[in-house]
Amino acid sequence: MTKPTGEFTLGSDAGIRETPLSDEVVFRGALIDVSHMQVRLPNGRQALREVVRHKGAAAIVPVDQDGTVTLVRQHRVVVDRITLEIPAGKLDHVGEDPLDCARRELEEETGLHAERFELLCPMLTSPGFCTEQVRIYLATGLSEHHAHLDDDEFLNVVRMPLAEAVARVLSGEFCDGKTALGLSLAWLKLKGTAPVACENPSIT
Amino acid sequence: MTKPTGEFTLGSDAGIRETPLSDEVVFRGALIDVSHMQVRLPNGRQALREVVRHKGAAAIVPVDQDGTVTLVRQHRVVVDRITLEIPAGKLDHVGEDPLDCARRELEEETGLHAERFELLCPMLTSPGFCTEQVRIYLATGLSEHHAHLDDDEFLNVVRMPLAEAVARVLSGEFCDGKTALGLSLAWLKLKGTAPVACENPSIT
Repeated sequence: MTKPTGEFTLGSDAGIRETPLSDEVVFRGALIDVSHMQVRLPNGRQALREVVRHKGAAAIVPVDQDGTVTLVRQHRVVVDRITLEIPAGKLDHVGEDPLDCARRELEEETGLHAERFELLCPMLTSPGFCTEQVRIYLATGLSEHHAHLDDDEFLNVVRMPLAEAVARVLSGEFCDGKTALGLSLAWLKLKGTAPVACENPSIT
Repeated sequence: MTKPTGEFTLGSDAGIRETPLSDEVVFRGALIDVSHMQVRLPNGRQALREVVRHKGAAAIVPVDQDGTVTLVRQHRVVVDRITLEIPAGKLDHVGEDPLDCARRELEEETGLHAERFELLCPMLTSPGFCTEQVRIYLATGLSEHHAHLDDDEFLNVVRMPLAEAVARVLSGEFCDGKTALGLSLAWLKLKGTAPVACENPSIT
């Protein structure tokens, strides 16, 4: 187990590609739709892929000049947990610029404006069955304005050093995926020892 | 914007808590169910929470002694992308030990056995509307055995230095959430400058 095999040539993708044959909506919900996609597998057989369609979201890691990150404490009744998360919200409609969504949600939830937004990760939350993509931004150059939550939104704003927040990710306390990922990437970009950029960025 | 407000006392949670009133299954699928949960908001009003129920999954960051990570290249037809991901799979049933699932999926997809598994993050993929939790493990002490994929599973195994994989996360190339998070946390634990542990681990 010492030699990397380096099997990441693009030529090998023919053997893994699935071909969509049909796609039927089987449930229309308030937030998500579900469809049943029939696909042709690489071996010629057919299989069902159950697809949850979600219009997407944006999330923001707002880091102040003194290294403090602003988080929101929420009750996630779906998983019966109180969580600490980075500010985030759903796109207003399919195709909304996720950066507009990020600016809006940051202001609504925390009252913060940011001079700079940098994309940290175009995160697919669960690409095996769900189309949701959460663009996670690092926001810097912050100034305080007024928060104004949606009618059905209740949260508390919490500030802590980014180092403490990342320590809480590493201890397994912060379990929200976008939050754990956004804080880790912000740390690697701003404070940590990030690996050097790779030489061949074309393999995915 | 210089003073952390430190508003993270547990006492403030009364103002954010939602109370479930009813929960009705509105769609039963092959992989997920959807239910409509009526909740009482902190302001006394009622609201609908649409819940996607998923039995959960386990994912593995297998890192060799020489710092090589083993990934799998897959076609995610749901998002129409070829992705590089850490090995992962769904729990066989609700309540399966996620570590058993991690051992099984690591062997099935890559042929690897690991002497040590360490939980990196009990990731909730999208806790606003989905119950899915992916336990992400760091696997070390690796040895090679035989991969044996499921009938409807097609993937290519890819190995690369962990540093290169994390550089690709930071460049936005690796967009699968569990993969980006697992690789970042493995880097922080094994190679990077992780922040020191916090002093008050009880606030979430």
